[in-house]
Amino acid sequence: MRDGELDATDRSILYYLQQDARRTSSNDIAEKLGLSSSTVRTRINKLEDEGIIRGYHIDIDYDLAGYPLYTKIICTAPVTERDRLANEAREVHGVTAVREIMTGKRNVYVNAIGRTHDDLNRIAEELDGLGLDIVDEQIIRDEYVCPYHGFLEDED
Amino acid sequence: MRDGELDATDRSILYYLQQDARRTSSNDIAEKLGLSSSTVRTRINKLEDEGIIRGYHIDIDYDLAGYPLYTKIICTAPVTERDRLANEAREVHGVTAVREIMTGKRNVYVNAIGRTHDDLNRIAEELDGLGLDIVDEQIIRDEYVCPYHGFLEDED
Amino acid sequence: MRDGELDATDRSILYYLQQDARRTSSNDIAEKLGLSSSTVRTRINKLEDEGIIRGYHIDIDYDLAGYPLYTKIICTAPVTERDRLANEAREVHGVTAVREIMTGKRNVYVNAIGRTHDDLNRIAEELDGLGLDIVDEQIIRDEYVCPYHGFLEDED
Amino acid sequence: MRDGELDATDRSILYYLQQDARRTSSNDIAEKLGLSSSTVRTRINKLEDEGIIRGYHIDIDYDLAGYPLYTKIICTAPVTERDRLANEAREVHGVTAVREIMTGKRNVYVNAIGRTHDDLNRIAEELDGLGLDIVDEQIIRDEYVCPYHGFLEDED
Amino acid sequence: MRDGELDATDRSILYYLQQDARRTSSNDIAEKLGLSSSTVRTRINKLEDEGIIRGYHIDIDYDLAGYPLYTKIICTAPVTERDRLANEAREVHGVTAVREIMTGKRNVYVNAIGRTHDDLNRIAEELDGLGLDIVDEQIIRDEYVCPYHGFLEDED
Amino acid sequence: MRDGELDATDRSILYYLQQDARRTSSNDIAEKLGLSSSTVRTRINKLEDEGIIRGYHIDIDYDLAGYPLYTKIICTAPVTERDRLANEAREVHGVTAVREIMTGKRNVYVNAIGRTHDDLNRIAEELDGLGLDIVDEQIIRDEYVCPYHGFLEDED
Amino acid sequence: MRDGELDATDRSILYYLQQDARRTSSNDIAEKLGLSSSTVRTRINKLEDEGIIRGYHIDIDYDLAGYPLYTKIICTAPVTERDRLANEAREVHGVTAVREIMTGKRNVYVNAIGRTHDDLNRIAEELDGLGLDIVDEQIIRDEYVCPYHGFLEDED
Amino acid sequence: MRDGELDATDRSILYYLQQDARRTSSNDIAEKLGLSSSTVRTRINKLEDEGIIRGYHIDIDYDLAGYPLYTKIICTAPVTERDRLANEAREVHGVTAVREIMTGKRNVYVNAIGRTHDDLNRIAEELDGLGLDIVDEQIIRDEYVCPYHGFLEDED
Repeated sequence: MRDGELDATDRSILYYLQQDARRTSSNDIAEKLGLSSSTVRTRINKLEDEGIIRGYHIDIDYDLAGYPLYTKIICTAPVTERDRLANEAREVHGVTAVREIMTGKRNVYVNAIGRTHDDLNRIAEELDGLGLDIVDEQIIRDEYVCPYHGFLEDED
Repeated sequence: MRDGELDATDRSILYYLQQDARRTSSNDIAEKLGLSSSTVRTRINKLEDEGIIRGYHIDIDYDLAGYPLYTKIICTAPVTERDRLANEAREVHGVTAVREIMTGKRNVYVNAIGRTHDDLNRIAEELDGLGLDIVDEQIIRDEYVCPYHGFLEDED
Repeated sequence: MRDGELDATDRSILYYLQQDARRTSSNDIAEKLGLSSSTVRTRINKLEDEGIIRGYHIDIDYDLAGYPLYTKIICTAPVTERDRLANEAREVHGVTAVREIMTGKRNVYVNAIGRTHDDLNRIAEELDGLGLDIVDEQIIRDEYVCPYHGFLEDED
Repeated sequence: MRDGELDATDRSILYYLQQDARRTSSNDIAEKLGLSSSTVRTRINKLEDEGIIRGYHIDIDYDLAGYPLYTKIICTAPVTERDRLANEAREVHGVTAVREIMTGKRNVYVNAIGRTHDDLNRIAEELDGLGLDIVDEQIIRDEYVCPYHGFLEDED
Repeated sequence: MRDGELDATDRSILYYLQQDARRTSSNDIAEKLGLSSSTVRTRINKLEDEGIIRGYHIDIDYDLAGYPLYTKIICTAPVTERDRLANEAREVHGVTAVREIMTGKRNVYVNAIGRTHDDLNRIAEELDGLGLDIVDEQIIRDEYVCPYHGFLEDED
Repeated sequence: MRDGELDATDRSILYYLQQDARRTSSNDIAEKLGLSSSTVRTRINKLEDEGIIRGYHIDIDYDLAGYPLYTKIICTAPVTERDRLANEAREVHGVTAVREIMTGKRNVYVNAIGRTHDDLNRIAEELDGLGLDIVDEQIIRDEYVCPYHGFLEDED
Repeated sequence: MRDGELDATDRSILYYLQQDARRTSSNDIAEKLGLSSSTVRTRINKLEDEGIIRGYHIDIDYDLAGYPLYTKIICTAPVTERDRLANEAREVHGVTAVREIMTGKRNVYVNAIGRTHDDLNRIAEELDGLGLDIVDEQIIRDEYVCPYHGFLEDED
Repeated sequence: MRDGELDATDRSILYYLQQDARRTSSNDIAEKLGLSSSTVRTRINKLEDEGIIRGYHIDIDYDLAGYPLYTKIICTAPVTERDRLANEAREVHGVTAVREIMTGKRNVYVNAIGRTHDDLNRIAEELDGLGLDIVDEQIIRDEYVCPYHGFLEDED
């Protein structure tokens, strides 16, 4: 449906990077796929340029790190401004992730770290000031990221 | 409140790794902080061993990559099994992230990719089979991860 | 309670057309009811003129046809504009059905097909632009239409 | 992603049948598309065989026809039985449509006609007897079906 | 649709009785309608026998009468037992009205008077003991009953 | 807490009138209580004057009477206007009862009879025009009024 | 309605104790009311014996005291066990207050202090183990207790 | 994380004051902790000055005291005004406690005593006049305050 869809090599590269984005070198991947390193590097660059790879993130256990007020803030944005507001929410100090959901209510999920109650208040007020309507706030207990095994499958 | 809390150096290391976990070498960080590379490497290893760093992830735009059925599945787990079920949900084929929220209802958020409706059905059925009660399913439009600027601040 | 209520013949005609609106000819129905074809045709014309028959629709399995983002969009219209807005929603590109429910909230159900996330976004924005408040969006898994057997029953 | 996806001719045929499924003959479509009638017939047969065309329905204004208790019954099915229960709901006397939504709650929508309160009660009890949990019941005020204009567009 | 539907005389009688069921005698109504008293009495008896007139009630302002804990208790009954449970709820000491709503949740509304908190507790426990699931309890501030003017209108 | 609270005689009179407000004469009550008729009449007049008795109503089974669209319309009024709006709702043609609940949302319950869908629409629009926000509409299946047995009990 | 209702002196005593339960001596109150100290002491003893005074509490700002995870846990208890469960919840380590609300859902509010996420988890699990169904958990930002001025008013 | 955090002595003092804030003298506490009375008094003064001890409250059973309309009023304040409005709500006559919850909806809980329905109405209207949106009102059946045992534990 889109031109430039991923082929099996692209999907394999994404899969191996999902395992450990920091310590999996292009060489490692090249070896596993029987390709040259430069081919893998070129592919990765292309995926980055197209925006399919958006970045590489460290995954931190904030509770263990001493930040117990790690919080999910569920917001409603007007449908026509959801995209813009989700982007602006990223700039609020303390925000660590924003997810935009395709619906009319409860459609922007913000993860944020407050060091104190006052800090969480400030974050809520800034989100509210952008035009987001805060519906709920909940402590995040734990989070896990997993690779997408579907990248390795034959889709035919 | 916990011994082994992060000091300013730990927090700075985490901050720089949040920017680009793949291409920020220990050397790069060492340079910025005026430390030796081996000190930074030791610190990172310790943070990994303690579980404060849980991993390094590639961030993929699934919609652009040709997977429009990238979905947030909101579940309720019984309070006493929330932790176990959130862990088991990671093993379901197609699941890419699990978040555990500290409340009694709508307390496990699962991100999953379905290639087709049948695939999403299968994922829902497997989550249900684990003992999770599925409350809602929504298409994820976009997501952004942001570094936590608080790591660079003086907390005193 | 209304004059011009349906009699048993009208109801039978509707029933047979519910089975297969395309391949059930007036002749077929006439034969089953022991009437002349022209009587059946006249009755059908009258039912169409009165608006009781609104049209004849093909029933498509959009998922099978390659459109996985076939979606139910649940909206709230102000009570006094519900009727007008439900009508206007039909004109939005991608909308395939609109249902108006007799209540104050969640009272306009729109079925729509998006080819991509951006396409679904556009539909949501156009509905929002009309004055509909979007409350929820959900993927439609399947739909079935069934004839109303009550048409064949003796109501006395 | 699926082999056997629709080409532009298939989509055009579907589009014209959406306009008036009863009075648009294969000849009419053949003429518009500059194809032979037999080609159009073959295509239609293939779409029916594949299940992409599920049938042809008459669209009745039940309120005008003297059935004011035309009702939308919103149910919850257990995720693993949603598909089976949605199918079984079709057999309940008075049911005119069933829609299956891809979520955990409020995931089966049943349209039904009751001639009296007792009749609506019976329908609700039969749905309940199947294993559907009835959440809401609302009078349907009006419904409109519209062709999907996307069938006529160039998707490249 | 039912035989034995009300005619204009029946409807007028109901209308006048709605004004003041205690002090409007059959004579009063007969006079207004230009009928004999015995005709009116016969009609009223027939309406009572058919169950269309269920009784004649005094309307009491419980708050003014010194019962501030006059409460609306909203319950959910299983669909197949809603009718039976609504009837049984009438027998609970302190209950003054029961309304049965045609839906799956929040479908039995009970008005009840508690003299004390313990008394309201007892009523709730008895309703729960019958099998009703209590969802909400709210103080009733005021209630007004009004005649149905539609009884006097020409329906053609 | 209020002066002029009901004594045991008042409560007994109310109780007997709850049984059958039309056919229980003052004489009947007087006999049961061992009082003179005129005493009972005086008491009743006083209860009416004080507003404790608000009227005497006929209880009609609207479904049996041929009005299947007998509906409960749940509204939200702004707290400061709830009382005024509940009163004004009584004047809307088709409304048969209004209950005012002591809370901030879903605080005005209106019972109304619509003869057709258009009629119910008109009622909803008029309520909306007054300033009531309509939240839900549900068909009333049945209602029962019961005497308050507490009137006969010794409260000491 | 109850014998042993409070008189004006009782109410005044309660009012002064609401101001500062620790530093308002019986002498202080006696002086303000023109009574003897022993009269005040007797009255207070009686109010304590009757259970009208349940105790004297210190009001702590837990956030300031270094406990940011001071949380309101909203539970549902079965109606017939609400009272018993609310009492048992008091015994859970970390619980600082329990409120029992007279309704069927969300009817037990528990305030609790968790020192860490694991601690809050343990509290939730113990409440769940008692038979309470946890519906929501929210951080308490602040709380204020105020005297009831109504104690000083003339109620006649 | 804060300087001036509580040490074990502070925590013990708070614990003993939680038992009975009125009848536990500084001497009693000093004895239990093996400290001088003046040390305890100094500590208490410091805790009061810092705002960690906000006051000492009498705990009244309002239902037993003859006030059955003791009510929890749940409100929503705009996020940026939640703090100010929670403070202003304390001034409303009849309010006995205000709790501010760290979320966007249902974020201010007000306990209030109404002597009559009109009194509760007045309170609701004053809260509404401040800018609080009242969402729910419920009768409080009972409440219990408990000491926080965590104060006596070794946190290491």
